[in-house]
Amino acid sequence: MRTRETILRAAAQIFDEYGFSGSSVSKIINRAGTTQGAMYFHFKSKEDLAKAVIDEQASDLNLPEQPDGLRQLIRVNLYLADELQENVLLRAGVTLAVEQGQLGLRDFSPYEMWAEQFRAELEAARRAGELLDGVALEELAQVLVAAYTGSQIMSHLRTGRADLPERIVQLWWFLLPGIAPAPVVDELRAFVRERGKQPA
Amino acid sequence: MRTRETILRAAAQIFDEYGFSGSSVSKIINRAGTTQGAMYFHFKSKEDLAKAVIDEQASDLNLPEQPDGLRQLIRVNLYLADELQENVLLRAGVTLAVEQGQLGLRDFSPYEMWAEQFRAELEAARRAGELLDGVALEELAQVLVAAYTGSQIMSHLRTGRADLPERIVQLWWFLLPGIAPAPVVDELRAFVRERGKQPA
Repeated sequence: MRTRETILRAAAQIFDEYGFSGSSVSKIINRAGTTQGAMYFHFKSKEDLAKAVIDEQASDLNLPEQPDGLRQLIRVNLYLADELQENVLLRAGVTLAVEQGQLGLRDFSPYEMWAEQFRAELEAARRAGELLDGVALEELAQVLVAAYTGSQIMSHLRTGRADLPERIVQLWWFLLPGIAPAPVVDELRAFVRERGKQPA
Repeated sequence: MRTRETILRAAAQIFDEYGFSGSSVSKIINRAGTTQGAMYFHFKSKEDLAKAVIDEQASDLNLPEQPDGLRQLIRVNLYLADELQENVLLRAGVTLAVEQGQLGLRDFSPYEMWAEQFRAELEAARRAGELLDGVALEELAQVLVAAYTGSQIMSHLRTGRADLPERIVQLWWFLLPGIAPAPVVDELRAFVRERGKQPA
């Protein structure tokens, strides 16, 4: 299993540096310092490696064990914005998921994984009275993942993701009044504005 | 110029059907029913064709000539959701912009083009008193384009874009209270919910 993880991380690095089409199995084997035999024992092809990087994009993250509501969801959103600058497995997985059409894939599951993660926080938020009546949790989770995905793409193109935390702050700033009661909006707008200014 | 437009539309069709890496100049020439000479007179390469499709993605749209505020912005958003099902130049341009990393491009301008379009509507909305004081128009335009982009990607993967209008309705439903005064929110929530049920 140790070898598999070494190869997976080497693949993420190569995909991140060269893109999928500019990457090759031999580059990945060299980076991993392993043999062709070891690599083909774990992965069938370059496509198979890309799928594994997409599926396991969150493996190196330190996500909260228990959902805890809106504040934690915002904190996770800003944590992901920071991780996208440094965590190569996450960054390569997210990029490959966005560009998956060029790999001949059509896989919704990476987005569904994040929507489930976000929805669990929204369910905790509902239990804590942090959401307005009538807010549909599944729809809101999908909107959040969509807005996050687009923010990540635009931030990558414009600033190499340097302005992603600020974009996430803006997103929450505009969304909060549509989903939370006024006292929660005030408290979390102060929180998100403050958090946006400092590294997580 | 007529030849150039024929080739551009043939390229959009081929990119839409085969993806960038599965497309070739010869497939595009065949589809356009033109000669290699005519094609290279207008476009240097497959990459050059892809850039033109990205840049000219909005050419076949029937967009409003004058900005007119939030209602028109919502109408344009829903119109784009419908066009993405049928307008091959738009669809190929949007998909290539999303997957541009695989083409070796890093071009923010297609997103900037939409942000400018949306911001002009927001400026008209501000003049009409449809926005809350303090709403930052550039930031809101960027959030809207980001949310639209991510919604389009997720809708494409999950339903072949069939649920995109409903996703745009959800987005506006959640966003309106953070950007507009209560009477405008009520009116536009009714409008967006109604529009989401019918083709534009």
